Amino acid sequence: MPSIKDVANLAGVGVGTVSRVINNHLNVTPETIKKVNDAIKQLNYIPNEVARNFKMQKSKMVALLLPSVWHPFFSEMAFYIEDQLDQDGFKLMLCNSGGRPDKEVYYLDMFYQNKVAGIIGLTYNDIEANVNTDIPFISIDRHLGTKITCVTSDNYDGGRVALRELAKAGVKKAAYLGITSDAYSEVVLRKNGFVDEAKLHGIEYVTFEENDNGYNDEAFFNRFFQNHGDIDGIFANTDILAAKYIKKANEKGLKVPEDVKVIGYDGIQDNDLFHPILSTIRQPVEEMARMSVNLLLRKIEGEELEQEIYRIPIHYRIGETT
Amino acid sequence: MPSIKDVANLAGVGVGTVSRVINNHLNVTPETIKKVNDAIKQLNYIPNEVARNFKMQKSKMVALLLPSVWHPFFSEMAFYIEDQLDQDGFKLMLCNSGGRPDKEVYYLDMFYQNKVAGIIGLTYNDIEANVNTDIPFISIDRHLGTKITCVTSDNYDGGRVALRELAKAGVKKAAYLGITSDAYSEVVLRKNGFVDEAKLHGIEYVTFEENDNGYNDEAFFNRFFQNHGDIDGIFANTDILAAKYIKKANEKGLKVPEDVKVIGYDGIQDNDLFHPILSTIRQPVEEMARMSVNLLLRKIEGEELEQEIYRIPIHYRIGETT
Repeated sequence: MPSIKDVANLAGVGVGTVSRVINNHLNVTPETIKKVNDAIKQLNYIPNEVARNFKMQKSKMVALLLPSVWHPFFSEMAFYIEDQLDQDGFKLMLCNSGGRPDKEVYYLDMFYQNKVAGIIGLTYNDIEANVNTDIPFISIDRHLGTKITCVTSDNYDGGRVALRELAKAGVKKAAYLGITSDAYSEVVLRKNGFVDEAKLHGIEYVTFEENDNGYNDEAFFNRFFQNHGDIDGIFANTDILAAKYIKKANEKGLKVPEDVKVIGYDGIQDNDLFHPILSTIRQPVEEMARMSVNLLLRKIEGEELEQEIYRIPIHYRIGETT
Repeated sequence: MPSIKDVANLAGVGVGTVSRVINNHLNVTPETIKKVNDAIKQLNYIPNEVARNFKMQKSKMVALLLPSVWHPFFSEMAFYIEDQLDQDGFKLMLCNSGGRPDKEVYYLDMFYQNKVAGIIGLTYNDIEANVNTDIPFISIDRHLGTKITCVTSDNYDGGRVALRELAKAGVKKAAYLGITSDAYSEVVLRKNGFVDEAKLHGIEYVTFEENDNGYNDEAFFNRFFQNHGDIDGIFANTDILAAKYIKKANEKGLKVPEDVKVIGYDGIQDNDLFHPILSTIRQPVEEMARMSVNLLLRKIEGEELEQEIYRIPIHYRIGETT
């Protein structure tokens, strides 16, 4: 009986390509598909039916694709996603992409081959073309396209609240600090909310951003301090960026919150043991996780969802930095 | 054709019980096994062969069972375990037990039913009786029994190094602080190393421990400060406990490191943004993770391992608390 390797040899392609032609058509040119199908016919190749039949049965495995479970925001998300999946009788496959687009595409391809029941993805690269809409997919933070439902915190409101809280704390000139990525993400709304609210209240502001490609802390903050010495309030688009700002500000002799008030975004600190305890816009991680699972299971059941984007309210959590 | 439900009805048990009798004999009494087998014979029931055949094929799924991926030590471990599994062509199923023994047993049962290729477990309860040695299992930190290979940091050496570093920093009377659990874990060696080294060098010491059952921070530390006001050096058996001690000590007007030097265990801080940066015995998390995967895969291949316990060297990482 001919094997998949025989097919690959005859078609002049790799075994992985043959598998992709059999299971889906991702990343395969029409020419290659024809070559492989011709080889399959010529050899009378029959794919492993036991495996194929089993895969047609409903899988109870959901894949979670995120940059790194080591990061506190993602580990909290993974914790609640697994908890909710377990309550609903599903299992979690965990995949760390390291934020690398090639690794994300590699994992997506693996999910399609393994016929997972669904995917929950936190991706920050332009991998939209690789998302196969045959498998239910819920995206967190990233709005990948009209067919992919997205669950996020209310980033726009988060930006507005941050500006208002800085103003309330007496800030005269506020700065939005952000690291951005090439792919569109809902994260940009943090800036938009901040800017719109500053305009509404007539508060002076600047926005200061840099792309994460080739990003360097030292250069970023040096440039910021050189150009914006008069800033007395910061809204950083993540807690880590807020903490980095505070470290650099301290090195420059600036005191937080006496000289500069600082608000972050995420709410990664889950205890009061390490300082500074950041004032922050707290993401509703548990609700985002449980809602992502609920929406995914509804999609798996074939339901149409009412919305394309589900935005969950944030809240302001006061710490030691405002 | 009779279904599994018909078997369950005739035997007077649940469908899950029938499944357990077919797939393994975990948590089923001999009486129930007999009832179910009689019903199977009487009805001429044939289990879903497609599914059964597929399950007999080699699974590429490894289960990771840990208390909570939300904890920084476990999330770092999960990150490296997934990375190594992926390099070796395996996938990771993530399961958070919340540290609850019933949840651990529930997951173990699920792993056996789903015929995962292997299991990596971080458990701190007495679940030894539920570990089925048919499926390759690697335990991290917990030494579950002679058939279960265990990978840990060199806890004993960690205790010795901590005592020596406290002494080097001028400590005259040192305390070991520990939260313990009922089940035996390698963690106890942190205390043994500390005590042996103190005796060896003739340094005054106390050990102060409490069981995690009904444990309460407030009571624990109040009792400690009442009874041991003369302590000027602390070795806490986790970083979190060290940080809690420092918070309580500060509330009592004690300064760290001026009045008391403090060393933790784990090395959970992966940046210099939040303070205090703990002086700590750093666990070799990446090496532990990769070695656990390597040993598990060798077991899956049917190899006999040379050792029952693999202990990996720790190192001391100086922070702001000594």
